[in-house]
Amino acid sequence: MLNVGVLGGGQLAQMLALAGIPLGFRFRFWDPQLGACAAVLGEHFQAPFDLARVEEFAAGLDLVTYEFEGVHWALAEALAIKLPVCPSPASLAVTQERLAEKLLLRRLNIPTARFAAVDSQGDFSEVAAQVGFPCVLKTRRQGYDGKGQRVVKCSNDLRKAWRELGGVPLLAEAWVAVEREFSLIAVRGQNGAIQYYPLTENQHVNGILRQSRAPLDSTWEGSARQYAARVLVELDYVGVLAIEFFEQADCLLANELSPRVHNSGHWTLEGAATSQFENHLRAIAGLPLGPSHALGRVAMLNLVGHLPAGLTTLAGIPYARLHLYGKTPAPGRKLGHLTLTGKNADLQAAELRRAWECE
Amino acid sequence: MLNVGVLGGGQLAQMLALAGIPLGFRFRFWDPQLGACAAVLGEHFQAPFDLARVEEFAAGLDLVTYEFEGVHWALAEALAIKLPVCPSPASLAVTQERLAEKLLLRRLNIPTARFAAVDSQGDFSEVAAQVGFPCVLKTRRQGYDGKGQRVVKCSNDLRKAWRELGGVPLLAEAWVAVEREFSLIAVRGQNGAIQYYPLTENQHVNGILRQSRAPLDSTWEGSARQYAARVLVELDYVGVLAIEFFEQADCLLANELSPRVHNSGHWTLEGAATSQFENHLRAIAGLPLGPSHALGRVAMLNLVGHLPAGLTTLAGIPYARLHLYGKTPAPGRKLGHLTLTGKNADLQAAELRRAWECE
Repeated sequence: MLNVGVLGGGQLAQMLALAGIPLGFRFRFWDPQLGACAAVLGEHFQAPFDLARVEEFAAGLDLVTYEFEGVHWALAEALAIKLPVCPSPASLAVTQERLAEKLLLRRLNIPTARFAAVDSQGDFSEVAAQVGFPCVLKTRRQGYDGKGQRVVKCSNDLRKAWRELGGVPLLAEAWVAVEREFSLIAVRGQNGAIQYYPLTENQHVNGILRQSRAPLDSTWEGSARQYAARVLVELDYVGVLAIEFFEQADCLLANELSPRVHNSGHWTLEGAATSQFENHLRAIAGLPLGPSHALGRVAMLNLVGHLPAGLTTLAGIPYARLHLYGKTPAPGRKLGHLTLTGKNADLQAAELRRAWECE
Repeated sequence: MLNVGVLGGGQLAQMLALAGIPLGFRFRFWDPQLGACAAVLGEHFQAPFDLARVEEFAAGLDLVTYEFEGVHWALAEALAIKLPVCPSPASLAVTQERLAEKLLLRRLNIPTARFAAVDSQGDFSEVAAQVGFPCVLKTRRQGYDGKGQRVVKCSNDLRKAWRELGGVPLLAEAWVAVEREFSLIAVRGQNGAIQYYPLTENQHVNGILRQSRAPLDSTWEGSARQYAARVLVELDYVGVLAIEFFEQADCLLANELSPRVHNSGHWTLEGAATSQFENHLRAIAGLPLGPSHALGRVAMLNLVGHLPAGLTTLAGIPYARLHLYGKTPAPGRKLGHLTLTGKNADLQAAELRRAWECE
């Protein structure tokens, strides 16, 4: 029996636990929120993320991981003094800070959009010179699902956007005419073995992932894997890492790293030989990784904000597997997802979205 | 959110909960045993199965099901006054009593071994006349995994066997030269729709299921489905029902009914479009049933008594999915199972068993 602490108790933690319990893992979730949805699958340590509570949380655990990168690096470090934390706090530190992340990618010769640091208003000229317009100003921490971002069309708008984002250090990135968005999910074991999941194509609506499909017949598969390998090896990374990419005419630009299981990998639950959740747990526990090949074509649809139909209807959709997270509906909140595994999964996904959006 | 009460909190309850949580079900397990292995996935109502506790157990539940047929019929009846109980207490009553079960099969024209009731020593002559020797004396209740049975070779041994089994009412069955053992798992929804899983071949060791394989290319598939349909319709059954069969030269004999998810259906977790656990929950909740076809050939190996290897070894077996129940090892106790999904699953299963038994 391996006792795993998870920082965060949302749906990713829930799916980690569903994968881990049959392998003999038991879970404790650190989540300040009452009713954290993973709580049904383990012990809920309901407390603010406070260094003073580290000892209490760690008691009796064998190792710690996270389901979101918003955890303060110092908290992960404090835990790492007591027990193994995977991925490492150093990996967390890089991937939770957008500038550090982009600098890592540059150092590893992984293409990104042009970018520049904006530490103060004095750096605005740098933005114009190195990045150009339009560009996107982003907070360096805590942004997700499109939050903490402003598109800036000219020099004159920089000050306004900077103020709106709170006058904190930012990252400026060239605005990219994105043709398609991809993600690659890879997992590295304690012995350095790496498994790659097939490249996934993603569609976002209002900054929130709405649909994924995999596997693709993409010419980018090889490049994406090479880039992932560079990051995994450089960080001596253990666990699942997700890299989001933009496709732009003739190049693949790395956009963002997530040091955890990822929404765009939910299709692996039914669609891959071993799910991202099981492989993350295998990696951090030092077990051999499972194979990551796709079992067929799949499409994944997020259920966002409200459920588009009742349980009977959702459970009756042919070729679909339903995953609900047990959360109260709220605008923009991810409540569940559907995996479509039929031969025409893409078409079916499009039809379902059309039907739901008309209602 | 549907709150489901489960009578019993063993591995079948655990796998029901693993299937149900993603559909929004929440669970309460009634199990007298401290450390019941399903407890990690819901609320553990730890109390003896006592009519006086029914009200407390039922509070806040939407429906009740069971993971074992040893529950007293009266308890299920008492629950059924308060809320839906599926399968019905009447189905439970028939399937938990071997004579009633055999009489039902006879009434439905489903072939069985010859049998006779043994209510007292006065019935011994009946056994000789109607059943013959060798025969098997079985207790009518509570027998499972080969417990509560005695093989009797001649009239003179009847009294001894009867005494050893406690001098209670028994069932005498003709001893059958079994060529192969099969089971059919079927599920019937509230609307009467039935789905059949492919026929499964089972191997027992010392009365305990050791290995299953499915699907088969069996000429018995059609007969088995017809027999299952007769039972399901006759009992107006809702949920998963398992029927065990003996193959004898040129006929298929029904041996036993189980009003619940069944060990010989564990392969459906990876090997069928919808697992027996999910379909049982769909049935009892009035949701549409999921498709039950096999996704490929699979073999299932039970891990009985002790784990044959450490977690790293078990988790590293190629083409295998590992399911551990979190139970303390004990002779004859089912601790987990492996599902083998490779092309040569049967061969691999045989090799693994040979290797483990040599250790």
